[in-house]
Amino acid sequence: MAARASINRLLTATSNQGCRGCGRTHASNHHHLPSLSSQGVRGMATPIETPLRAGPPQGNGDYAFEMAASNLRFGQHATREVGMDFTNMIAQLPASERANAKIGVFTDPNVAKLDVMKVVEESLMKEGLNWVTYDKVAVEPTDKSWQTAIDFARSGNITHFLAVGGGSAMDTAKAANLFCTYPDADIYEFINAPIGKGTPIAKKLSPLIAIPTTAGTGSETTGTAILDIPSMSFKTGIASRALKPTLGIVDLNNTKTCPREVAISAGLDVLFHSLESWTAMPFHERTPRPANPINRPAYQGSNPISDIFSKWALEQTVKYLPRISKDPTDDEARAQMLLAASTAGIGFGNAGVHIPHAFSYPISSLNKGRAKDKQYHHPSYSPDVPLIPHGVAVSMTAPAVFSFTAPSAPTRHREALAIFMGDRADQLSRIKDEDLGQALGEEIQRFLDILGVPRGLSQVGYTSSDIHSLVEGCLPQRRVLDLAPLLSRDDREEQREQLSRIVENSMSW
Amino acid sequence: MAARASINRLLTATSNQGCRGCGRTHASNHHHLPSLSSQGVRGMATPIETPLRAGPPQGNGDYAFEMAASNLRFGQHATREVGMDFTNMIAQLPASERANAKIGVFTDPNVAKLDVMKVVEESLMKEGLNWVTYDKVAVEPTDKSWQTAIDFARSGNITHFLAVGGGSAMDTAKAANLFCTYPDADIYEFINAPIGKGTPIAKKLSPLIAIPTTAGTGSETTGTAILDIPSMSFKTGIASRALKPTLGIVDLNNTKTCPREVAISAGLDVLFHSLESWTAMPFHERTPRPANPINRPAYQGSNPISDIFSKWALEQTVKYLPRISKDPTDDEARAQMLLAASTAGIGFGNAGVHIPHAFSYPISSLNKGRAKDKQYHHPSYSPDVPLIPHGVAVSMTAPAVFSFTAPSAPTRHREALAIFMGDRADQLSRIKDEDLGQALGEEIQRFLDILGVPRGLSQVGYTSSDIHSLVEGCLPQRRVLDLAPLLSRDDREEQREQLSRIVENSMSW
Repeated sequence: MAARASINRLLTATSNQGCRGCGRTHASNHHHLPSLSSQGVRGMATPIETPLRAGPPQGNGDYAFEMAASNLRFGQHATREVGMDFTNMIAQLPASERANAKIGVFTDPNVAKLDVMKVVEESLMKEGLNWVTYDKVAVEPTDKSWQTAIDFARSGNITHFLAVGGGSAMDTAKAANLFCTYPDADIYEFINAPIGKGTPIAKKLSPLIAIPTTAGTGSETTGTAILDIPSMSFKTGIASRALKPTLGIVDLNNTKTCPREVAISAGLDVLFHSLESWTAMPFHERTPRPANPINRPAYQGSNPISDIFSKWALEQTVKYLPRISKDPTDDEARAQMLLAASTAGIGFGNAGVHIPHAFSYPISSLNKGRAKDKQYHHPSYSPDVPLIPHGVAVSMTAPAVFSFTAPSAPTRHREALAIFMGDRADQLSRIKDEDLGQALGEEIQRFLDILGVPRGLSQVGYTSSDIHSLVEGCLPQRRVLDLAPLLSRDDREEQREQLSRIVENSMSW
Repeated sequence: MAARASINRLLTATSNQGCRGCGRTHASNHHHLPSLSSQGVRGMATPIETPLRAGPPQGNGDYAFEMAASNLRFGQHATREVGMDFTNMIAQLPASERANAKIGVFTDPNVAKLDVMKVVEESLMKEGLNWVTYDKVAVEPTDKSWQTAIDFARSGNITHFLAVGGGSAMDTAKAANLFCTYPDADIYEFINAPIGKGTPIAKKLSPLIAIPTTAGTGSETTGTAILDIPSMSFKTGIASRALKPTLGIVDLNNTKTCPREVAISAGLDVLFHSLESWTAMPFHERTPRPANPINRPAYQGSNPISDIFSKWALEQTVKYLPRISKDPTDDEARAQMLLAASTAGIGFGNAGVHIPHAFSYPISSLNKGRAKDKQYHHPSYSPDVPLIPHGVAVSMTAPAVFSFTAPSAPTRHREALAIFMGDRADQLSRIKDEDLGQALGEEIQRFLDILGVPRGLSQVGYTSSDIHSLVEGCLPQRRVLDLAPLLSRDDREEQREQLSRIVENSMSW
C-alpha cells in the first residue's frame, strides 16, 4: 500500500543530494542561503533557510508573512490584576455604553473549584464589575458544547470575555465571542474548509482576556480554536488572527495544581507546536498568494520571525519538560514551561503545525467512538472518561513524521536533532544527511520514553485495521496538511499512501 | 571628579566576586540561576538570568512583565496591500461611520518624492479611499513640528493614520493620532516625566499603519515617539503601549534608496536597541511595582521574552550591518537588517534602553545650538543641516557605557562580547570577568571603526568643557536612566559623577 510513497520519498531524497550552491544536501522547498548560516559564536544565530526576500512576485507563492500575537503579561500573582484590566478597557467605551458592560467568565467545572477562580472573582468584585460565570466548558469541546456556550453568551448580552482554564476554556470563549459578534452565523460558517465554509472573519470581536491554567495550548496568544465533531469522528477548528485574545495573563500560581500527567500531555503539545512550526513549509511556497491580506492565513508556513519563537520554545521544552515529569512541583521548570507554551504559541500561531497535529485529531476522536472495552483511558483523567489527551495523541506519529520530513530541510532537522541530543550533540557531525530522519525519529522516541508516553498507537488500542480510518480522519485537515513538507499535494492517492506509511510506522517503537 | 564613581564601581565589582550559588562572578541585580544556564548544543538556549518567578510579592519590585507588539507584515511588495488593509479596517466601523473615514498620510518631503509614496497612493486610490497627505514631517521632529502635524490632523477630521518614512514620520503620526484622540490636551500632557506630566494614555487611539523606509528605529512596532525640544536643548518622548501602530508593513523595496550613511546610522540604532535592552535592569528590580497594570511602563526592564528578541537582533546586526556598510545594495543584508530592526523594536519596546540612548539626546541636541562654525555636519545629510544622526549619537558613549555596566551581569556581557568577537570567540574563555567590560568596550570600538563612525565625542566637536552640559542634558532622561545597571539611584551626586566619567571616557578612542 505504501510502496509508491516509499519510492517517492526516496526519489525526493535523492534528487536533493548535492546542491550546487553549497555542496550540502537539502531539498528545494527550504532555501538554503549559505550566507545566512550561523555565526561561529557560542550563542549562535539561527540559520535562516526561509528568506525574507522572495524576489519579485513570481508564480503563485506568497511574498509576505505576518506576525500577530496577543499582548501577554507574565508574572506570578498577575491574575489579581484582571479586574483592573477590565475597568481600564471599559473606561475606553463611550460613556453611554459603560453601564452595559458585562463580563462573561468561561471556565470548566474543575477549574471553577480552584484558587484561580477565587482570585479572579475577588479581582472582579473589588472593581465593582458586572460579570456572569459559565462553568460548563467541556474538557474536550464539541460542536454541541460550543453551541451551549454560544447560546449562553448570546442571550446574556456579554460585552467582554474572560477565559480561565486550559485550551478548552480559552477556545470555547473565543467561539462564544466570535458568534456574539456574528449573532446570526452558525458554527460551520468560520470552521476551516472543507469541513466548514472557512469564511474570513471581517468584524472586530469584543475584548477577551485569557488566563491559562496549563502550560500547553498557547491559546492565550493564538487565533486558534479547536473543537471535536463527534458525528464526523474528527476534530477541527477555526484559525484566524481576529480570534486572538486581547491579553493573556500567564501566572505561575495557576499551574500549581496541574496533575503530572496533564502537565506532560500539555508539554507535548508545546513540543510539537515548536517542532512542527519550525519544520513547516516556508511561507513563500504556500499557494495561492492571497488577493487580499485579510485572507493571508494565520497558519502561513515557517518564516524568520516564527522561527525565533519555535526554536527557542523547542529548546526550553526539551530541557524543562522532563524535569516536570520527574517532579511536578519543580517551580522553575513550571515557570520555564509557561514561557515556552506562550512562545511556541506565537511560533505556531504565525506559522502553523502539520502532520502530527493532523493525525492527533482522528487519534483522539476515534477512541471515543470505539466499543467500550476497546477504549483507551489515560491515567491522568477520570477512569470513566475514554481519552487520549491531545498532547499524547500528537506525539504518537511524531517519530515517524519527522523521519519522513527530514529530507525537506536537513539543516533544520539537524538543528532539532542537536537540541534533543543535548550533551551528545558532539556526535552529530557523524550522522549523514540521509540518516538524519531515522536519528531524529529515534531521539524523539527516547524523549517520549523518558516522559512515559505510550509507545505507539498499538498501546492505545489501535491495530493495522485502523490505518484506513486514521488516514481518512486526517485527510480533511487541509489547513495543516497543506503545510506539511514532502507530502504530495497534486496526487491525493500518493498522499494517502504517504500518510498510511506514517501510521504503519507509528504502531509501536 | 569621577573618583567616587570609580571607587563605587570597584566596590560593586568586588562585592560580587564568588557567588556561593555557582562559584561564578555576578552582580546581585541579575539573578544567576545555575539551572537556567544554556544547553550544550549548537543552537544553545539563551541563559536566562531574569527569572519569570519573582516569588511572592516582596519589596517594591515588579512581579510581572508585559509583551506587546504591533502586528507586523514582512515582505517585498507588501506595501501595495495597504489600501486593502484600510478598506478592511473601515469595514469594521458601524455603517454610519464608514463614509466619514479619512486617512491622514504622514511623510517627510524627501520620502514624498520616492517610489514608496507612489505605491502607497496607487493602493489607496485603487480602493477608492478618502485620504489627505501631510508631507511636512521634520527630519528630527521638534515640539513645533509635532504641533503643526497635530493641528493638521485635528482640523482635518482624520480617522485613520498612515506613516511612511523613518522614525520621524512614524513618531509624528503617533503624536498626531494621540492628540486627535485627546483634542484638548497639550503636548506635555503625555511626555515622559519629569519633562512632561507623563499621564498614562487611557483611551484607545485610532488605527495607525506604519511603513518604515529605514531599518532602524523599530517605531513600526513600538509605542515610542521621540521629539526634540530645542528650547531645552534635549530630546525626550512618549512611551506607551497605547501608541503602538495597529500594523507595520516592512517591505524591502522601501529601503532600496536609503543612502549608505543613513543606513549605517539607522543600523547603529538597531545595534544599541538590542544591546541596551539585553543589558537593562531586570524587570523585577524596577520600582515601584505599579498599582494598576495600565501604569506598568513599556520600558519595564529586561525580561525573558524581550531577551529572545534583543539577542537575536544583536546577532543579526553584528553580522549584516558591516555588509551594508561595504555594499549598500546588498539585498540580503538589507532584508536581514529590516528583520533585525523590527525585532530589536519588539525587544527594547518591551524592555527599554539605557545610558547610550540617554546621552544620545543631548549629544544630538547640543550640536544644533552651538556656534555655526562649531557645529558637526554628518556626511549623510545636506551640508546645510548641522546634524549628529541619532544612531551615531547613540554609539558615541557605548564603548564606555558597556565597560561600566559589565560587572552588573557578567554572563550577559560575555555573551554580547562573544557575538562581537565572532570567529574569535574561542578566545573568550581567557578573558576574566574583571576584564570583560574593557574587552567589550574595545570590541564595540572595533565594530564602530569598521563602519567608519567618528571615533569619539571629540571628533564631532565636543571637548571636556562640554561634559557638564552633556551630563545635565542626560539627567532628565529618567525613564531610561532608571533602567541603567549600576547607576546610582539614591545618590544623585554619585550618579552625576558616574555619568561624567562615561563622557570623559567617550571623548576619543
